[in-house]
Amino acid sequence: MITLRSYVSGAWVVGRGKPAVLVNPSTEEPLAEAGSEGVDFGAAARFARDRGGAALRALTFAQRGAAIGKLGKLIFAHRDALIDLAIANGGCTRGDAKFDIDGGSGTLAAYAAIGQALGDRRVLADGELTQLSRSPRFAGQHILTPREGVAVHVNAFNFPAWGFAEKAAVALLAGMPVIVKPAASTALLAHRIMELLVDAALFPEGAVSFIAGSVGDLVDHLGPQDVLAFTGSGETGAALRCHPCVVRCNVRVNVEADSLNAAVLGKDVERGSDTYRLFINDVVRDMTQKTGQKCTAIRRVLAPRDLLAAVEEDLGIALDAVVVGNPAAAEVTMGPLATAAQRKDVRSGIDQLTAAARVVWRAPVHTAPVAAPAGKGFFQAPVLFRAEERAGIAAVHAREVFGPVATVISYDGTAASAIALVRQGEGGLVSSLYTNDRAFTEETLLGLAPHHGRVFIAGDAVVEHATQPGMVLPLLVHGGPGRAGGGEELGGRRGLAFYMQRTAVQASRTFLETWLGS
Amino acid sequence: MITLRSYVSGAWVVGRGKPAVLVNPSTEEPLAEAGSEGVDFGAAARFARDRGGAALRALTFAQRGAAIGKLGKLIFAHRDALIDLAIANGGCTRGDAKFDIDGGSGTLAAYAAIGQALGDRRVLADGELTQLSRSPRFAGQHILTPREGVAVHVNAFNFPAWGFAEKAAVALLAGMPVIVKPAASTALLAHRIMELLVDAALFPEGAVSFIAGSVGDLVDHLGPQDVLAFTGSGETGAALRCHPCVVRCNVRVNVEADSLNAAVLGKDVERGSDTYRLFINDVVRDMTQKTGQKCTAIRRVLAPRDLLAAVEEDLGIALDAVVVGNPAAAEVTMGPLATAAQRKDVRSGIDQLTAAARVVWRAPVHTAPVAAPAGKGFFQAPVLFRAEERAGIAAVHAREVFGPVATVISYDGTAASAIALVRQGEGGLVSSLYTNDRAFTEETLLGLAPHHGRVFIAGDAVVEHATQPGMVLPLLVHGGPGRAGGGEELGGRRGLAFYMQRTAVQASRTFLETWLGS
Repeated sequence: MITLRSYVSGAWVVGRGKPAVLVNPSTEEPLAEAGSEGVDFGAAARFARDRGGAALRALTFAQRGAAIGKLGKLIFAHRDALIDLAIANGGCTRGDAKFDIDGGSGTLAAYAAIGQALGDRRVLADGELTQLSRSPRFAGQHILTPREGVAVHVNAFNFPAWGFAEKAAVALLAGMPVIVKPAASTALLAHRIMELLVDAALFPEGAVSFIAGSVGDLVDHLGPQDVLAFTGSGETGAALRCHPCVVRCNVRVNVEADSLNAAVLGKDVERGSDTYRLFINDVVRDMTQKTGQKCTAIRRVLAPRDLLAAVEEDLGIALDAVVVGNPAAAEVTMGPLATAAQRKDVRSGIDQLTAAARVVWRAPVHTAPVAAPAGKGFFQAPVLFRAEERAGIAAVHAREVFGPVATVISYDGTAASAIALVRQGEGGLVSSLYTNDRAFTEETLLGLAPHHGRVFIAGDAVVEHATQPGMVLPLLVHGGPGRAGGGEELGGRRGLAFYMQRTAVQASRTFLETWLGS
Repeated sequence: MITLRSYVSGAWVVGRGKPAVLVNPSTEEPLAEAGSEGVDFGAAARFARDRGGAALRALTFAQRGAAIGKLGKLIFAHRDALIDLAIANGGCTRGDAKFDIDGGSGTLAAYAAIGQALGDRRVLADGELTQLSRSPRFAGQHILTPREGVAVHVNAFNFPAWGFAEKAAVALLAGMPVIVKPAASTALLAHRIMELLVDAALFPEGAVSFIAGSVGDLVDHLGPQDVLAFTGSGETGAALRCHPCVVRCNVRVNVEADSLNAAVLGKDVERGSDTYRLFINDVVRDMTQKTGQKCTAIRRVLAPRDLLAAVEEDLGIALDAVVVGNPAAAEVTMGPLATAAQRKDVRSGIDQLTAAARVVWRAPVHTAPVAAPAGKGFFQAPVLFRAEERAGIAAVHAREVFGPVATVISYDGTAASAIALVRQGEGGLVSSLYTNDRAFTEETLLGLAPHHGRVFIAGDAVVEHATQPGMVLPLLVHGGPGRAGGGEELGGRRGLAFYMQRTAVQASRTFLETWLGS
């Protein structure tokens, strides 16, 4: 059995005490163990700040970008081996694994390009020179400089490669050292990426640290220049936000949490049309890709009343074709949930939805997972619900079931009705709209935008060109208000701001012009 | 005695129960009373969201800007009466009162101009259209739309006019209704501005509400689209951040709290030179303006060792000229502290500094405040300390004494030494630098920037043109990391983002170009 190590203060460290055991979620076979007891987290944070931070700040954006680009290429070069780890430890199909791993290397490539474009500078100008008084000789200029702390990244179990890469790319390009804390249960993949990164010596010592196991007392050591980015449950996010040390020092925090993303089908769309088929495909993909363990997955499916029966039938037909099992077998199209705890949580969520809505599709009871030992594995077949507009359906809008589960909700086809329903999610990461009706698009978009970090709109003209709504893209922001955590990541250059301090510099115009003029 | 009323749900309401009594801090005479017991805060928030929010969102930026501009003019038109209220209830000199009131109307005018420039739109584009995949036909565009909640503004006692105006201007221009909660002790001025605003019917019903007295259970009624902006003590800021409702709904919070702003004198500056005199003037002004009750006031004065004696002597000479008393008397140049509680807090701070540093200037013991009844008024004469670099001086860098108090600290004249000292403040709103040495400027600026929301640099070339470092300007950001609260306000258009949701819209390029094309 492999023992995962932490990489802190410039060295690999094996934890003491009782480690967490990482298993293959299809077979429940142990794969590795990870523990961080005994790690000196205070020293790790200081080392990252003092050594890693200083070294990163000495590099230009172009230099940081070049190292980030090399990490992307390194991941791509080891893609096949990494995919195997994702299948074994994550319960991922090959497609799921590629989505995670290629998403990671793609995001690194995107930030490498941003670094190259920012070039040989270490300070970013933010906006233009501003005249402050009647005199033109004294002016203001906003700048962004790297924060002088450490960025702690507490990542979710579902995207061990992409989660690592997307957060690290932005922080490192901004000039901040990172401490990566993947979820222990699926850490094998992230750990392997960290090994590759350390062996290739891509970044200065201290720029990237890694925790295999629990985060220990790391948060107690955070200070006013540090930042904390968390992806996971709203509950843990809330606890981190209110951690005494975070509150006392006003540690900057970003939380990406729960979201009941909606897909809205316009009443103008005909069954069987290109847009309709894209809608059905997107819903089924989101239900089954990563076994529904995607923060951006569609959980609520709004269908106009006249299309409700068709939508349910066509989703059912597509779900009939899903082959659940151990993704080591080629015919499997959907793997298990990642952990026993996730399966327990999903089952409790299904129970909640069963009390609030009606099951319209579920797999035959006796279907055994393919290529899995009898009685083993954290499998959960898809379940499709339908909610009627009546009392008692609050769970449909409030309970994110993090598995292959969605609920169809009928609406009257008007923008106002769609907006009113989607808003009950109280803030989400992304919702999507499938229509060719421009007036409906504009009205619905304006109603959904304040409640989302992203809105995806598809119609006949873009069926061949649209990326999938559940895919987070490096150049677009990722995050959302309210239930979704209230945070924001990525968005190209925008993402750098979280890791930098914006400062208004007031000085003589001549100084400002020549200082930043290059 | 005047009874202040709250303006909620479209009507003036007198609170029940035992009100807070507002006094003249020079004489301790009661002026007014204010209480908000019995106000239905839940209904007030709903009214603001439903009526005020919808009406504001229906207006264009230009229309909102026009109303904001009218409020600025209205305040200017009533300037003399407002100044009298500030003198009576705030203990302000005429100069202090103008600083607050003109700062308010000036900020309103600045945001009115921004509204005019943004014109006839209701949605802001954020950045350019982004190509998302190989195909140019599907693209991304970030937009900003007004959040659909209410903006609660909990303001500090020291700037009743400016605090009201600067927060309201930004929120209203962004399209969010506001509930203004001034500090009760000095609410007379803010209450009068609210009366003017209501009587002139400048904004749609529900766009601006006002609480005279305590904030009650208002925070319990906040939801995922609401925002909370607080200016005041770090302790209260922390409590608001961790309020269960704020945490559960991820209410967006901005805190502007404590700050030990520093002024750094370069070793190149000669005693008596223009830059030197500006430095002395700025320090003394910040110690005495608003009786030192300014979040941006210089609290730490870094003097090169060779200039230490000169700086202390020249500051002392300037402080000798300060006339403390009731600002109703024309010869008075510094009024009392605003409340008995503030005086108690300042005195406790002076005690802490006395244990950590040495008094180098303080007023003769027997000087009685001018034009104040014997034994009355919350007066506190200036105190100047000097801290030596030794153990036990932590309070000098950590204790913001919110009164006419500053500490001189000697340093060796190097940028590294200045940066190391200033950083001990653990995050501030603004620090200032007085020098004509370009290399020293660049190095110090880069070292200070990550720790500040603003850095002010003055040298001989701008002595005639520089605004004062303690003045917050509408086009520059105001806020700071760490101890300063970790927030950001103003900054021209930047400030709008706090009250808006950024959303990445993915759609056909044609749609995006024509939709936002105007």
